[in-house]
Amino acid sequence: MNAMLPSIIVWVSGLIAVGFAAYLAFDVLRRDTGTKAMQEVAQAIFEGAMAFLNRQYRTIWMIAIVAAVLIAALLYFLEPNRALAGELALKTGISFLVGAACSSLAGFIGMYIAVKSNLRTAAAAQRSVVEAITVALRGGAVSGFLVVALSLLGVTAIFYAFGGATRPDLAPELIVGFGFGASFVALFAQLGGGIYTKAADVGADLVGKVEAGIPEDDPRNAAVIADLVGDNVGDCAGRGADLFESTAAENIGAMILGVSIYAWARSQGAAHPEYWILFPLVIRAFGLLASLVGVLFARGNEQEDPMRALDRGYWIAAVLSAIAMVGVTSWMLGNLHFAGAGLIGILVSVAFVYITQYYTAGSWRPVREIAAASKTGHATNVIAGMAVGFETTASTAIVISIALLVAYVLGETSGVPHGGIYGTAIATMGMLMTTAYILAMDTFGPITDNAGGIAEMSHAPASTRHITDRLDAVGNTTKALTKGYAVASAALAAFLLFSAYLDRIQILRPNQPPLVVDISHIDIFIGAFLGSMLIFLFSSLAIRAVGRAAGDIIEEVRRQFKTNPALLEGKARPDYARCVDITTRAALREMVAPGLLAVGMPIVIGIWLGAAAAAGLLIVGTITGILVATVLNNAGGAWDNGKKFIEAGNLRDEAGNVIGKGSFAHAAAVTGDTVGDPFKDTAGPALHVLIKLLSTITLVMAPLFLLR
Amino acid sequence: MNAMLPSIIVWVSGLIAVGFAAYLAFDVLRRDTGTKAMQEVAQAIFEGAMAFLNRQYRTIWMIAIVAAVLIAALLYFLEPNRALAGELALKTGISFLVGAACSSLAGFIGMYIAVKSNLRTAAAAQRSVVEAITVALRGGAVSGFLVVALSLLGVTAIFYAFGGATRPDLAPELIVGFGFGASFVALFAQLGGGIYTKAADVGADLVGKVEAGIPEDDPRNAAVIADLVGDNVGDCAGRGADLFESTAAENIGAMILGVSIYAWARSQGAAHPEYWILFPLVIRAFGLLASLVGVLFARGNEQEDPMRALDRGYWIAAVLSAIAMVGVTSWMLGNLHFAGAGLIGILVSVAFVYITQYYTAGSWRPVREIAAASKTGHATNVIAGMAVGFETTASTAIVISIALLVAYVLGETSGVPHGGIYGTAIATMGMLMTTAYILAMDTFGPITDNAGGIAEMSHAPASTRHITDRLDAVGNTTKALTKGYAVASAALAAFLLFSAYLDRIQILRPNQPPLVVDISHIDIFIGAFLGSMLIFLFSSLAIRAVGRAAGDIIEEVRRQFKTNPALLEGKARPDYARCVDITTRAALREMVAPGLLAVGMPIVIGIWLGAAAAAGLLIVGTITGILVATVLNNAGGAWDNGKKFIEAGNLRDEAGNVIGKGSFAHAAAVTGDTVGDPFKDTAGPALHVLIKLLSTITLVMAPLFLLR
Repeated sequence: MNAMLPSIIVWVSGLIAVGFAAYLAFDVLRRDTGTKAMQEVAQAIFEGAMAFLNRQYRTIWMIAIVAAVLIAALLYFLEPNRALAGELALKTGISFLVGAACSSLAGFIGMYIAVKSNLRTAAAAQRSVVEAITVALRGGAVSGFLVVALSLLGVTAIFYAFGGATRPDLAPELIVGFGFGASFVALFAQLGGGIYTKAADVGADLVGKVEAGIPEDDPRNAAVIADLVGDNVGDCAGRGADLFESTAAENIGAMILGVSIYAWARSQGAAHPEYWILFPLVIRAFGLLASLVGVLFARGNEQEDPMRALDRGYWIAAVLSAIAMVGVTSWMLGNLHFAGAGLIGILVSVAFVYITQYYTAGSWRPVREIAAASKTGHATNVIAGMAVGFETTASTAIVISIALLVAYVLGETSGVPHGGIYGTAIATMGMLMTTAYILAMDTFGPITDNAGGIAEMSHAPASTRHITDRLDAVGNTTKALTKGYAVASAALAAFLLFSAYLDRIQILRPNQPPLVVDISHIDIFIGAFLGSMLIFLFSSLAIRAVGRAAGDIIEEVRRQFKTNPALLEGKARPDYARCVDITTRAALREMVAPGLLAVGMPIVIGIWLGAAAAAGLLIVGTITGILVATVLNNAGGAWDNGKKFIEAGNLRDEAGNVIGKGSFAHAAAVTGDTVGDPFKDTAGPALHVLIKLLSTITLVMAPLFLLR
Repeated sequence: MNAMLPSIIVWVSGLIAVGFAAYLAFDVLRRDTGTKAMQEVAQAIFEGAMAFLNRQYRTIWMIAIVAAVLIAALLYFLEPNRALAGELALKTGISFLVGAACSSLAGFIGMYIAVKSNLRTAAAAQRSVVEAITVALRGGAVSGFLVVALSLLGVTAIFYAFGGATRPDLAPELIVGFGFGASFVALFAQLGGGIYTKAADVGADLVGKVEAGIPEDDPRNAAVIADLVGDNVGDCAGRGADLFESTAAENIGAMILGVSIYAWARSQGAAHPEYWILFPLVIRAFGLLASLVGVLFARGNEQEDPMRALDRGYWIAAVLSAIAMVGVTSWMLGNLHFAGAGLIGILVSVAFVYITQYYTAGSWRPVREIAAASKTGHATNVIAGMAVGFETTASTAIVISIALLVAYVLGETSGVPHGGIYGTAIATMGMLMTTAYILAMDTFGPITDNAGGIAEMSHAPASTRHITDRLDAVGNTTKALTKGYAVASAALAAFLLFSAYLDRIQILRPNQPPLVVDISHIDIFIGAFLGSMLIFLFSSLAIRAVGRAAGDIIEEVRRQFKTNPALLEGKARPDYARCVDITTRAALREMVAPGLLAVGMPIVIGIWLGAAAAAGLLIVGTITGILVATVLNNAGGAWDNGKKFIEAGNLRDEAGNVIGKGSFAHAAAVTGDTVGDPFKDTAGPALHVLIKLLSTITLVMAPLFLLR
């Protein structure tokens, strides 16, 4: 029985989570769909989003199938061990495609429900805050639970399909393709979505607010639907794919690390040595259940700040996760040192909630500093925001370093060989237990944002718009928190993923000494240098892509204004669909170059300079990536809230008069906010994905890096 | 005779260079000092600059003496080898102070002549371009030659004083303090000067141009003299100290690397094994002579673009350096592989001249892109500049990587053990041969900039101002080139300096295996992570310091306008001295925190996590530092020239009309330029220094990192 128990837990929890997502989807879909005016707007958003997603996934799949064939061919023809070459190539190719398919499926369904939920949230906001929160959170939770459950079930299925039941020590190596497939899709999904959302946002603002002088979300602006579509495809589908591959890559990495302990546990005569390999799956299953309970308890009342209801649900999920962590480590690993490491991970996730709030919420020094700097103009606002962004790397690096070190020492003193690295893996698992909940909160953001847009464009009464505005403010906070969480989990996971790479190298050449990543050697140094550079070049391409795509949109809106003068008077309906279509084309065109750079460079360096140089690229690229993503996310978030701080009337001059909307300072703050847009919504999130892609790509391609 | 020859060459060349600097200083000082109005302005600048320098060096020396005592005490009390502790502590302390003193002396004299040359350049511009170029270049060359000569003579003197004639293999280790002293002074000099110059610039612009609506360099603005002083203390004194420590640190590092070859050469019965240690000094001496000839030939004629005259001088210096490189490697090392490595270095310096021009000159894509983005406003200008800045890391990283690899392979295939690393060291030496010339061109920048300000403020005739404007434009180019050169040389030198650190560790514990900087180990990974973070945090502090110091200046100018209404009408003279004084205080106050962070963190990490973690911090901190400095410098330069591109009337709308000064696009370009100011003139240059400080600090403190 005990031998079967882990897999039963995983399957049952995964299916419960899928069932829960189905129930939530059903619950959301059967709800009130509001007024006819609302339905019309929502339908336009729905069509635009699904059209983009269709075209995007078609493009991604075309590239993915070519990539799968290339990877399989490279592995087949270059693997020196001919007996193994066929199986390796086939299984890697299959797991790559399964990973890509699961990620696509989760993204597609989650997004489908999200763009259905926005209308229902707007409709519910006609009546009550509590109902609106419930709809938006449940709509978001569909995505959150599907992402985590499909990632868990996908890894588990491939693991058993590739012989995990009989040879649990061999299977993890064969499923690395799953993680690569997932990050491959995630990279393009996040890049395409991120470019789309910010190009539409910047384009709509520049041509609408600046040139034509009409307000945000104004129906006369042809780009306004594209802007609302963008909120979904960037924040919702992109982040879903990001966290899908995170959970997949980290599960696989942790299982590979478990393999080296498995051998020791067997030699010690342990009853279930395979528990060391299965632990990551089981703890993830309990995390899903804890998140499920959290969602059920996240109900507010009409007077309460909606953020408090979401917070309460998060705390319940976190406490339940902690209890499960202690229980599962005692049962499966029989060693409380690892429970300690797991709790560290849960603490890190809580710490980042507060750090992100400190840096991006208006009640603290950083945002106030940016708002104050706006008084002296555009340039000082931008300088202040960059300084804040650079500064935020300190708390990120210090918290992650301490957490890694403590988890490592706990693991190392556990008496288990390789326990130190396993300790850091368990800390990562702990941090990621609440992923489904966090993702639900994240998707809450675009849903409420869209609900606000629908209310605005359908001329809903002020009371409805007041409620959607309240929810929108909460959504902005949850989006920022998720980004902090995503980058922190990437940082914590990085160490586990490097170690998995080194373990895989060791498995591939068992009779040689371990790979030494001595960065003072010239080739490893150059790998590291180029890896660090990759982060900056990739960011540059992503940021520039937004500018170019926005240019296409601006031209189209200008053209519509010029050819149809009735538009500006509100007497004609602009051609929204054409704008959506142009944005789609532009985003898909622009995502290709940075995507291919990210995939190609590690492979080229690894084949040219060898496995150790690839490790240098991986590790130093990851360090730089974490820090640059932190800078971009937090600077963007702080600029955004600096603008909101001024709009809320919190900035005053020396005489105590409010410097508010429409002031020179406000114009400067809008500049900062716009600069931050491609930072925090395109380049920053794409870097999270890139970091993990570096890990999965090196894991999969490792055999080729040993040819040199 | 052959045994004495290298030291004779070094002493004679060094003294020739000092004599040449003295001759140039004398030549500049005896020249025409222009009209009385010019003299008055120049006197104010002179007084302000010297007052700042006095106070700055007093502050630096107070910190330096405390640091010297602390370092000596730490080494004395913590060194486990008691027999060695006293000598190590004493000699390190002394060489630290000598290094600090030589750097201060070079900075002080160079700056003294520079602020005397600006007046003479303005006076010469009344008559002829050629005469003005000659004065400005000669004034700049005083600084250039003194810096390189004092660095060379200082290292040589300490080397022989510490027994280099009898035991050349032991002395290099004892002179590491010299490099640390030099970088210690450089860090604070560059930070203080960089904060001063940009705080004065931003402060004067914001309160003058934006608030009071008066033009740049207008005598009614109380901060205008502080602004002119700033050009000297930041660009001139700061960069001088930066390149002083570069040449010192790289000489010392290369000599340490020579020690390991020395042992082999002795065992082979070579006639002069010490040549491997003395080579860096000799090649530097020839570089000085080559630069001297270059300066003598850099004469233009009245019609020619002044930049061409400077270019010609540079090419002469570069070609003579290449010839000397081949000659000296054949003579001293007897191996043409190393001549090849040296030529690579010279080629890299030429490559960076073109790369910097591509990214920051108006004739190419990047600057045009920024100018075009200004049409849609402040935010798009800033986004375009950041994208360009990020992009420039690619060419930097690729050129440096290729150069390092080729130099390493040349050295490795030379048949000399440790030849690979020595090859990279010689490439660095090659790159740095023309430092004196480059530095002369660099100081040419602030001198001509000041000459323009003097002409403006003294209401000189239009013909004079036309000439100073031409020279000023050239000065901006040379300043940008020097920054590219400084960061590229830091990148090339980085590898040599890591290797020197590892060699020193080996010397300190001779019977143990070499230190392995395996970055996949947790403590080394954490050292690397925190080292990378240090770069961002330090940049944040430096950027924020500018904002805070500028705030002090704005308040003071506002106060003067308010209390004395006659000022704005031009009927009263503002209190320039008070503004200079306030800027001085603010800059000195703000330089302390980032300075102490930079010095403290490597020591704390090294003592806490050990020598390998310190190496991780050093290497990954250096990689990140090079890339972030590249981003900051080039984004700043590109924004600056984007603005100039528009001001020159090169931007046009679709109908072909010029979008020039005063347009919306121009206002946006000014925003980018202002954002770039603290990037390219404060944080970027301070990072060059920080990178080398990390090397010298770890070299000096290495004994303490072995205690763990």
